[in-house]
Amino acid sequence: MAASGDFNLSKTRLESFSDGVFAVAITLLVLELHLPAWTHPPSQSEQIGALVRIWPQYLVYFVSFGTIGIMWLNHHALLRNCERISHGMVLANLLLLSLIAFLPFPTEVLARVGVTSIAVVYYGLTMIAISIAYNVLLQQVFAAHPEYRRPLNRWSLIGLTFYPLATIIGFFWPMGGIVAMGLLALFYMQARNVRSVALQLHEQN
Amino acid sequence: MAASGDFNLSKTRLESFSDGVFAVAITLLVLELHLPAWTHPPSQSEQIGALVRIWPQYLVYFVSFGTIGIMWLNHHALLRNCERISHGMVLANLLLLSLIAFLPFPTEVLARVGVTSIAVVYYGLTMIAISIAYNVLLQQVFAAHPEYRRPLNRWSLIGLTFYPLATIIGFFWPMGGIVAMGLLALFYMQARNVRSVALQLHEQN
Amino acid sequence: MAASGDFNLSKTRLESFSDGVFAVAITLLVLELHLPAWTHPPSQSEQIGALVRIWPQYLVYFVSFGTIGIMWLNHHALLRNCERISHGMVLANLLLLSLIAFLPFPTEVLARVGVTSIAVVYYGLTMIAISIAYNVLLQQVFAAHPEYRRPLNRWSLIGLTFYPLATIIGFFWPMGGIVAMGLLALFYMQARNVRSVALQLHEQN
Amino acid sequence: MAASGDFNLSKTRLESFSDGVFAVAITLLVLELHLPAWTHPPSQSEQIGALVRIWPQYLVYFVSFGTIGIMWLNHHALLRNCERISHGMVLANLLLLSLIAFLPFPTEVLARVGVTSIAVVYYGLTMIAISIAYNVLLQQVFAAHPEYRRPLNRWSLIGLTFYPLATIIGFFWPMGGIVAMGLLALFYMQARNVRSVALQLHEQN
Repeated sequence: MAASGDFNLSKTRLESFSDGVFAVAITLLVLELHLPAWTHPPSQSEQIGALVRIWPQYLVYFVSFGTIGIMWLNHHALLRNCERISHGMVLANLLLLSLIAFLPFPTEVLARVGVTSIAVVYYGLTMIAISIAYNVLLQQVFAAHPEYRRPLNRWSLIGLTFYPLATIIGFFWPMGGIVAMGLLALFYMQARNVRSVALQLHEQN
Repeated sequence: MAASGDFNLSKTRLESFSDGVFAVAITLLVLELHLPAWTHPPSQSEQIGALVRIWPQYLVYFVSFGTIGIMWLNHHALLRNCERISHGMVLANLLLLSLIAFLPFPTEVLARVGVTSIAVVYYGLTMIAISIAYNVLLQQVFAAHPEYRRPLNRWSLIGLTFYPLATIIGFFWPMGGIVAMGLLALFYMQARNVRSVALQLHEQN
Repeated sequence: MAASGDFNLSKTRLESFSDGVFAVAITLLVLELHLPAWTHPPSQSEQIGALVRIWPQYLVYFVSFGTIGIMWLNHHALLRNCERISHGMVLANLLLLSLIAFLPFPTEVLARVGVTSIAVVYYGLTMIAISIAYNVLLQQVFAAHPEYRRPLNRWSLIGLTFYPLATIIGFFWPMGGIVAMGLLALFYMQARNVRSVALQLHEQN
Repeated sequence: MAASGDFNLSKTRLESFSDGVFAVAITLLVLELHLPAWTHPPSQSEQIGALVRIWPQYLVYFVSFGTIGIMWLNHHALLRNCERISHGMVLANLLLLSLIAFLPFPTEVLARVGVTSIAVVYYGLTMIAISIAYNVLLQQVFAAHPEYRRPLNRWSLIGLTFYPLATIIGFFWPMGGIVAMGLLALFYMQARNVRSVALQLHEQN
């Protein structure tokens, strides 16, 4: 139950707290879906219209869900083989979680304001911040595990390059930016990419 | 703590994350219960009236709660004997969770719009989507465990047949559709049915 | 990790799902605290007034928190020594959780409507329902563990007697009813009472 | 899985429930971020203005997140080496959790009312209450583990002194009070300070 290491924190409890935050943040996303405020009982066609017209909210829901899902998967793959939990890892993990837990707000902004240039850029900036925080955690993991080699630069660079790119696209073509971020989540979901996060830790073992 | 397998994901953490999403989604349902907005302090009879008149919301609350509860139970029974967590299982699981976590929204639509044809069909479509996603997960589990036989078709077909049926009923008779979905949840709660999800994995072991 | 037993459900996952629902329900209570809607920036004394005037909401928050807390503690004490998870226990547990997860709504009613006769009776009825569901779970636990004797009637009777009593008090003197339910939670928190839930299972072992 | 001890509560389940409450409370904070209610579709500059003008809400979000994060870390460090879970520890833990779970409300007050003297003092009073509850838990841990020495007074005194100080600052200079509480969270995040909570339990072992 207790991980041995130079620092006094069990991996089990770090993972259970992180899983909790991931699970709550991913499930709170649904609270950001909104129907219009009707002043009268809506007719049948108004109901259908409202449920169809909010399709961008559905899209954003699944992009946010997919992004948090893939972050959870990477988080897991990254910590799986860790033998030590350093203090730096704990703080970097808190930073990452604070941004994951923040994601429902930009999702809410998109639902309230609509898929506008500003709302998509704001959403993209949050994605970039998550990307950076994930890389900080990555650095801390490697600093605490010097015996593993660091071949992850390729995948990290993809995130650090493509989220800004998708954000810029989003400024000029908001829906295109959202779709690009959705595609990025799908890209990261490929088995090859998830495996690459974790297996590299093994190889030199 | 770590499951051996061809893929780098521990069953423990998959289950703990899934349990988190199930637990949060099932508990968020209560936020969709609404009192009317009073412009004056309501009289005693107005208070009683309001608490009684929202009985369809109570019904929907328990149907949604029962459905998520039974999905959690089946999810558990299904994964219990799994020895391998494949990448396909992880993705199918995320898809299932994204729809489970979505259920509070159709529940909210029913609370806001009332038990109308459209709201019940929308709710039913979500149930059908959950049903399909559960079957996708089932396929992935069997694909990763070729040594087990596949006798689950019967129960899957029941879900894939009766949720569309209940949805069609709901279009013509909204309350009837809700009750039918509640009865389906009760049906799945029978010991025989829950056991059938899991035990089949055993038999050929 | 897996509990042996006549039914295919691990105690670990039952407890982890239940802990999740308890933890989410107890934490959602805070969302039911409400400030008045100001149409202008409130003055300093209006701010103080608002924060002080909602003291009944604080009281209800702590009574609800204490009640869910004690239910969690009893739930734990009850399951601690269980060796078998029967199907009946699983269903009774889902019923109990559905009522625990419902508690934020009567708490919201008290915050919205105020501490009125009706709101307190509604809150008390939920407490009674929780009490009954807990006793149903108790029956199921004993049915699955016939080797243990059943000395819990005393504590169960106290709950089944005093919650209705506090509800009746609450009809005539709303604040008195809330205080009585808070005192009941405090009463159940005594070590002797929590211990009695669990230790009895031991004695005949 | 089960901790031996004089009381019938497993450390695993105490930690899993507590982690749940910490995780939910920390993730609910995001629901307290609010955009203004627009009566017309906001222009691009209105959108930017709104997202920038709520910067105090971002600051409060991170101060609250950091505070709950550090409380979780200390909670973990404190319980890590515990061998016994006494009844007093369970009750003190519930008290602490009830105040941690309350923190989203003062955070909401700051978002609704703005960073005013009253709102910051209210927020500071909650911090002081958390500080005191943490010290009550500390007393209970030491009471249950008489073989460990008590060198924690220094760090406890810092919390019990500086939160009141930051609250007084906040009355005269609201933003200064918030920043001071943020700095306190950063101070507690230093490895030396987290380690000091836990290691002292070791030394006389």
